[in-house]
Amino acid sequence: AISAISKDKTFYTENRGMSELRKLIAEKFNKNHKTKIGYDSVTVTTGSTEALFSAMFSIIMPGDSVLIPDPGYPAYESVAKMLGANIVYYKSSLSPNETEYESIKKVYGEKVKVIIINSPANPTGRIIPKEQIEKIADFLKEKGTFVISDEVYSDLIYCGEFISIADFLPMNRCVAISGVSKSYGMTGWRIGWSISSEKNAKELNKSHMYIVSCAPSISQYAAIEALKNKHCEHYALSAMSKNRETALAELEELKHIKLYPPEGAIFLFVDVSQLGKGEKVAFDLLEKEKVITVPGIGFGKRGENYIRISFGVEPDILREGLNRIKKYFSSI
Amino acid sequence: AISAISKDKTFYTENRGMSELRKLIAEKFNKNHKTKIGYDSVTVTTGSTEALFSAMFSIIMPGDSVLIPDPGYPAYESVAKMLGANIVYYKSSLSPNETEYESIKKVYGEKVKVIIINSPANPTGRIIPKEQIEKIADFLKEKGTFVISDEVYSDLIYCGEFISIADFLPMNRCVAISGVSKSYGMTGWRIGWSISSEKNAKELNKSHMYIVSCAPSISQYAAIEALKNKHCEHYALSAMSKNRETALAELEELKHIKLYPPEGAIFLFVDVSQLGKGEKVAFDLLEKEKVITVPGIGFGKRGENYIRISFGVEPDILREGLNRIKKYFSSI
Repeated sequence: AISAISKDKTFYTENRGMSELRKLIAEKFNKNHKTKIGYDSVTVTTGSTEALFSAMFSIIMPGDSVLIPDPGYPAYESVAKMLGANIVYYKSSLSPNETEYESIKKVYGEKVKVIIINSPANPTGRIIPKEQIEKIADFLKEKGTFVISDEVYSDLIYCGEFISIADFLPMNRCVAISGVSKSYGMTGWRIGWSISSEKNAKELNKSHMYIVSCAPSISQYAAIEALKNKHCEHYALSAMSKNRETALAELEELKHIKLYPPEGAIFLFVDVSQLGKGEKVAFDLLEKEKVITVPGIGFGKRGENYIRISFGVEPDILREGLNRIKKYFSSI
Repeated sequence: AISAISKDKTFYTENRGMSELRKLIAEKFNKNHKTKIGYDSVTVTTGSTEALFSAMFSIIMPGDSVLIPDPGYPAYESVAKMLGANIVYYKSSLSPNETEYESIKKVYGEKVKVIIINSPANPTGRIIPKEQIEKIADFLKEKGTFVISDEVYSDLIYCGEFISIADFLPMNRCVAISGVSKSYGMTGWRIGWSISSEKNAKELNKSHMYIVSCAPSISQYAAIEALKNKHCEHYALSAMSKNRETALAELEELKHIKLYPPEGAIFLFVDVSQLGKGEKVAFDLLEKEKVITVPGIGFGKRGENYIRISFGVEPDILREGLNRIKKYFSSI
């Protein structure tokens, strides 16, 4: 390109994201954590999906072992498989009594290159408690393992406290992933980011550059506005908090099902084992009541007897959906 | 997600792109080619960069041979390397007298999984002529090779005729890649697409889904408007056509350099061998005249004695850049 030096700066900024946006993201992260990262630790991506993909793509080589949660967000498994990884499952907590650390320690093997943790978790809505995060970090400190910490729901916390593993592990061993989709209800804008050490961020940006060049500029401007505006942050949390209350009030009394109130995220992970497999129940719900839920098996073996209900919708749609779900379960 | 069936459609549409947009893209492709593809052959991506990445990611396995043009767009090589491919270079034409087919035939080996062709080409601005495209297609017909046809500059044709290899090969052997960035001057919006058989499109969409979930919705709306509006299409072509005339008029008379008028795209690939390597000349231009050009070596060995000058900028910036380039070459 023929242009002045100043243009050159614009070009480089665009690849990893506009510097104003990256500064706001770094500030937000430092405010919530013990970290002191600079804005060159941040790579702005096309949604947190691309942040996850580019992190996995950068780090995982064919044959590497990757530890992923069961149940867990399906992309972890799918992308790891695409990259030729050997997948090892650890138990993610289905109830407040279950914890991750013991399971991680148990299945941990020699060739583990990456461990993916997700708190608050999809599909369960569970937060990994601080003492668990500390134990996991301590355990991993000795090893060379990378942690990809998927924190997309970290602004949607209803009870308990969200702690990033980045508070206990050096940044060059962590990639923290988040975005505006969940925190600000901005799914269509496709702005996410990954945070790591500056050195790792350079590598992540290299993949990012070849995957999409840069995140959409218009969306980056929108994300800057959202991050600057405290109101935006609280808006999504308060809306989702109300939805969660509504959903729990409607469903907690139902017979035949069992659920633990989610501590974060936008899902109820509901044990339907009294009625059969989750797949059958979800299919029934769709056929009889035209309500879409997701069979828990889609998130891993341990989700077999569950269905996932999302409350991340407009209140009137939520109420209509809940009525149909109640109708279905009451008719059994 | 709790929602009605209608919502479900929205969800699926979003992954591979809104159906209205995919229909417009299919229509445009069929109008310009002999094809009769449906809109399920189209995957809307975050810029053509992601279309290229997801196509390469879907098709290339570690150890596969990939044929790429030299000189050629650097992402071909970088992404192929990231995917563990074995790279084989064929000669892309530097002048109207050079042709691709013989070179492809010459270097073609047993394990070639994919061949990437790029017409109009970056960095050379050359179009692969129809009879060459036909010969290449005939040659590949016998083999199982995939063609990834990078056609991002196909709306920017100044002389000659652009022919897609999709006119001569079955769609299940081709992935055609394009987007709005170049055709409509909409780089910041990040809307591109890949076109293949419906079956392949399903596979491409699977990768796309895990790479970015979906292209930004706002940008998809913008792309719909651009594709509907004939004026938009001609605007970029006419602007670039004027820029090309300006650039050629200013530079053709210069001593010490040699250039062939580009048939498409937005670049002049200039032979500076009388003055030294392209790298030295590009560095000198930056240092002495603050003009950015790209050393040809960045596009492959055969580009060593060249620099690439882009005329894809605003007319006043172009004129200023050309003046500086003229000053530099005149002072030697």
